[in-house]
Amino acid sequence: MTRYRLVIEYDGGPFQGWQRQANGLGVQEVLEDAVFAFCGERTRVYGAGRTDAGVHALGQVAHVDIEKQVVGDTVRRALNFHLKAHPVSVLEAQAVAEDFHARFDAVRRRYLYRILNRGPAPTLDLNRVWHVPVPLDAPAMHAAAQHLLGEHDFTTFRAQMCQARSPVKTLDRLDVRQEGDEIRITAEARSFLHHQVRNLVGTLRLVGEGKWTAADLRAALVARDRAAGGPTAPPWGLYLVSVDYA
Amino acid sequence: MTRYRLVIEYDGGPFQGWQRQANGLGVQEVLEDAVFAFCGERTRVYGAGRTDAGVHALGQVAHVDIEKQVVGDTVRRALNFHLKAHPVSVLEAQAVAEDFHARFDAVRRRYLYRILNRGPAPTLDLNRVWHVPVPLDAPAMHAAAQHLLGEHDFTTFRAQMCQARSPVKTLDRLDVRQEGDEIRITAEARSFLHHQVRNLVGTLRLVGEGKWTAADLRAALVARDRAAGGPTAPPWGLYLVSVDYA
Repeated sequence: MTRYRLVIEYDGGPFQGWQRQANGLGVQEVLEDAVFAFCGERTRVYGAGRTDAGVHALGQVAHVDIEKQVVGDTVRRALNFHLKAHPVSVLEAQAVAEDFHARFDAVRRRYLYRILNRGPAPTLDLNRVWHVPVPLDAPAMHAAAQHLLGEHDFTTFRAQMCQARSPVKTLDRLDVRQEGDEIRITAEARSFLHHQVRNLVGTLRLVGEGKWTAADLRAALVARDRAAGGPTAPPWGLYLVSVDYA
Repeated sequence: MTRYRLVIEYDGGPFQGWQRQANGLGVQEVLEDAVFAFCGERTRVYGAGRTDAGVHALGQVAHVDIEKQVVGDTVRRALNFHLKAHPVSVLEAQAVAEDFHARFDAVRRRYLYRILNRGPAPTLDLNRVWHVPVPLDAPAMHAAAQHLLGEHDFTTFRAQMCQARSPVKTLDRLDVRQEGDEIRITAEARSFLHHQVRNLVGTLRLVGEGKWTAADLRAALVARDRAAGGPTAPPWGLYLVSVDYA
């Protein structure tokens, strides 16, 4: 048996999220089916981040155990061959230590959220960005976001169905940058609560519109109450960019 | 009557090209239908570049005459409202002189061609890039491309159905740059022959693969024979980026 570390890119649009589901297709399922088609082994693919329905990945990391004796590049090519029907590509596959765990060994996850901030609707970037037609003040959003860095109880930005044992997380980075008519928000932490990035983005939008001040954002955090936060931004602007390991 | 200059973005995928067609939908047609829905006027929308089926635009320019008395921003919003069913957005609309002509007054057209140069297939960029899985030497492609600059008879890179009076064009820029796993080719000229950019890109690929030298490319140009050129690159990697006026 060899354990392989996979780096995976996918369009989240057609999927009910990363996880195998009773109803609808999960990215995990099409990967497990590709492994079976390749080597006849029914095995579990463990992902670092359980992205929600519609959320994309540029660099999801997963691990899988395969009995068949092959080199990593063969695994990558074979999986991609069997993934042709789906917008999922394995960018890398390499043999790793048998105790490597894609989820539990991750020390940093990086997400990108893309807002298209202009009047006209997206065309080429449809389902790739959140279209916000009202003007947003990106520098104000960035300045306010810096108040959320560090270790906090993030209950205000946590989905009700979140299964994490604790709402306390350490947010290491929350950058808001304007690039042309796009606003790109980068979030980094060891781990995130369910919907945390989308809830942060939906709330930062209020700051960008001038409806909230940085002090309002800070007060919302301190309230430790989901009702004190802003709305949840839609999934199609969110990308799992990369996962780091020690 | 007021003439408006429009800047238009579109996903070329669902269209049979810019031009109104007997069979299949043209971008021009959905714009003309949007004008009619907005003001009840049946009028022609003239584009600067007649992009082929599947070719995208980030900044197509067109002009249209409207009798209804409105400001440019109202035209933009109204057209976008009526374009909602299609991946076409009007980014700008402004009143211009009555003798402005989007096609004949253009002094420079800029195209971008995107090649995804990696083994795994595109996922998020499906139908947005040409996937070339074999490694390409972008610096060699760039060096060879410079031999094509200036005024030449471009018959070798001209589609048979091209309706231009002369095959002589002046190519002002043909840059090939590597950005991560993407190769981006920028072409600029006052005007292009039919399929010229796609034929140039398809031929530059041969240089990138090491099958052709810069001298082979030069010889192909001098041959003035389409059969001496390389294959036509697919439309979905091509973008009309912008059109300049004096």
